[in-house]
Amino acid sequence: MTHQTHETVFTMEATPVKFGRGAASEAGWEAARLGMRRVILITDPHVARLPIVDDVAAQLRSVGIEVSVFDRSRVEPTLESLEEAVAFARAFNPDGFVSLGGGSSIDTAKVANLLLTHGGEILEYVNAPIGAGRKPTGPLLPHLAIPTTPGSGSEATTVAVLDLPELKVKTGISHRYLRPSQAIVDPELTRSAPSAVIASAGLDVVCHAAESYLSRPFDSRPQPKTPDERPPYQGSNPVADVWSSQALRYGGQYLRRAVADADDLEARGMMMLAATMAGVGFGSAGVHIPHSCAYPVAGLKHEYQAEGYPSPFIPHGFSVIVTAPAAFRFTYEAMPERHLQVAEWLTGRPIQDPGPDSLPDALIALMREVGAPSGLSELGYTEQDLPELVAGAVKQQRLLAVAPKTPSEADLEAILRASFENW
Amino acid sequence: MTHQTHETVFTMEATPVKFGRGAASEAGWEAARLGMRRVILITDPHVARLPIVDDVAAQLRSVGIEVSVFDRSRVEPTLESLEEAVAFARAFNPDGFVSLGGGSSIDTAKVANLLLTHGGEILEYVNAPIGAGRKPTGPLLPHLAIPTTPGSGSEATTVAVLDLPELKVKTGISHRYLRPSQAIVDPELTRSAPSAVIASAGLDVVCHAAESYLSRPFDSRPQPKTPDERPPYQGSNPVADVWSSQALRYGGQYLRRAVADADDLEARGMMMLAATMAGVGFGSAGVHIPHSCAYPVAGLKHEYQAEGYPSPFIPHGFSVIVTAPAAFRFTYEAMPERHLQVAEWLTGRPIQDPGPDSLPDALIALMREVGAPSGLSELGYTEQDLPELVAGAVKQQRLLAVAPKTPSEADLEAILRASFENW
Repeated sequence: MTHQTHETVFTMEATPVKFGRGAASEAGWEAARLGMRRVILITDPHVARLPIVDDVAAQLRSVGIEVSVFDRSRVEPTLESLEEAVAFARAFNPDGFVSLGGGSSIDTAKVANLLLTHGGEILEYVNAPIGAGRKPTGPLLPHLAIPTTPGSGSEATTVAVLDLPELKVKTGISHRYLRPSQAIVDPELTRSAPSAVIASAGLDVVCHAAESYLSRPFDSRPQPKTPDERPPYQGSNPVADVWSSQALRYGGQYLRRAVADADDLEARGMMMLAATMAGVGFGSAGVHIPHSCAYPVAGLKHEYQAEGYPSPFIPHGFSVIVTAPAAFRFTYEAMPERHLQVAEWLTGRPIQDPGPDSLPDALIALMREVGAPSGLSELGYTEQDLPELVAGAVKQQRLLAVAPKTPSEADLEAILRASFENW
Repeated sequence: MTHQTHETVFTMEATPVKFGRGAASEAGWEAARLGMRRVILITDPHVARLPIVDDVAAQLRSVGIEVSVFDRSRVEPTLESLEEAVAFARAFNPDGFVSLGGGSSIDTAKVANLLLTHGGEILEYVNAPIGAGRKPTGPLLPHLAIPTTPGSGSEATTVAVLDLPELKVKTGISHRYLRPSQAIVDPELTRSAPSAVIASAGLDVVCHAAESYLSRPFDSRPQPKTPDERPPYQGSNPVADVWSSQALRYGGQYLRRAVADADDLEARGMMMLAATMAGVGFGSAGVHIPHSCAYPVAGLKHEYQAEGYPSPFIPHGFSVIVTAPAAFRFTYEAMPERHLQVAEWLTGRPIQDPGPDSLPDALIALMREVGAPSGLSELGYTEQDLPELVAGAVKQQRLLAVAPKTPSEADLEAILRASFENW
């Protein structure tokens, strides 16, 4: 009970997780345990074509739960797609939510749950300055999250991301009450995912974990005046580090295998676990430069056609990873040991010739092996797009604040410029 | 959604933790956030003499919470001491619990909360065969746990341990709803703890983590017929391993310093964190042979006088650690690599001459350096006590089931016999 100038406290909260092959068959049991009797099952149109939606709905009905399926969550949720989910929820009036899909379906359930429980308009809750940053005053309805891709870690986080194309910005709603009540992580559900989906999602996991481990230490922030002012992204801390480091080890060890072979459920399972672990880690520590750049990279152009995706679209993980080599070359001097440690976890061996290129080189090797785009050029960007890309990245001050070395506009431009061709 | 003969699923749940120097000054804010207006603050008579009880009560009152202090939790809770707490709770009728102290105070709050919320008698809820193993049908009132010793990890677990001296047995109540809603872990609170308390508590942490890491893998159990039949102690799994391994590293790195210097708050803080991490780990994986033996070791004789304790009494961590060297020599052959890994984490360096003695040697070195008793002899036991010690350990079948190699009665006798003098 001392007074100090610097922050001395960090917090850590993790969604309870049930993990393993076949765990999704316990969806009904978990939902009933959470007190659900009448739920909305939120998914997206692609997942809705797979048998797993019927399987999960059947599991829920088998324990007497009434189920209404909302299968129109959008892969990058917009205000409109979220409002549709909110209207659906208000009409059905459920006592709980089950989400089944990628991060977008889980995020859509978070927002529908928030609005159903606490009323109001979505923009009121969106992070300032775009929204009013309204905070929910109490817990939401129970939410059982069942991810189908090893990527977003949304099942473990307090964040819902949304795209505002008219403002050319991606932003989000963030509050501890948005964290799902329970996650079921079942490697069997990834079996149908195309390689490019696994690659993009896995590179997102690696970046979540690397950015968290390489974020500004929590105790370098000034002490908040009240606990309310402690930011959700607190910076690296000893508990987040545990999660991030394990996700990085798994990423280095299993991502190549998970991409190469859809039937390698051991590798896909470990990447599912890595995604959840990284979610817990970045939910406490935060992400910064690559994720800030990813917002405009994903938002400004939609020309890239990734294999296995139905239409041109930049998968989130690819939008994040393309600037990661340059971003970590820029942050290297702020914490060289930690950068080398990340490179070592990713490669699984001691680093030869340690230096600012060690981590970028390790990332580029991984990107090449899993078929990631080589840089912004391949995603359709040219020199002329730089001002708009920089402007989009600069807007993400909430994220950039946790970078271990704060980038100026000129630094962001240099990072983006260096990311046209990573090889 | 496959059928397999072996278990394929594990679960992991962690209490939300707020950690750091000065974090206890946020007790009022956290309690208010949890919706508390009228709480019982549960502590023990030793802690009650320290200023921290008044400090925390003042923090709670400063946000308008009514506080009644129950300062009679017993260091090894008995049926009687718990019933007193339950009666106190029923008379005051709080809407939440705050516990401040060692594992016993936290456990007392868990039991009082359980009985206040769901009614009935304590024994109904105690694990079978001693009790009826009744399960609570829904969540309890919010419980904010504030540990003052880096040991039990009770803030992170679903277990409350109680002593039944008339039956010469220690047993417990275990259910996920017993897990506290929030923990505040503040290294400042350990400043008043005597060295022997830190030593015993820290050895308990090391043993929690080692037993968890060296427990039977979760997927070697048969698949349960329903999720209800999945045991709380599931065996080692990739997530529990992350927590256990970090607690072991911290134990090896910081326990000696934490014992040597009460003002080394960095070391005491890291041991607080290790205790919570180990609690999360063993709350999922489980503990086995040393903890099974600890029940009769702590229960049968009360002659040992540890420095810094008010009366003759075997501190829990000492009752656990004395049989650990022999127990891990016995389990070595079931998973040699993992035993050597634990030894490496504890010593912080590669093991010379790896073999069955590597981990016992590492533990003995640590025990000697922190002033632990040398074995059962120093605790007052002789050859003649062996049958009763064995009988007490054999009763703990729920724990022994997660040992990587199941000990027979003769094996337990050999382990106990080898534990009279560890050096």
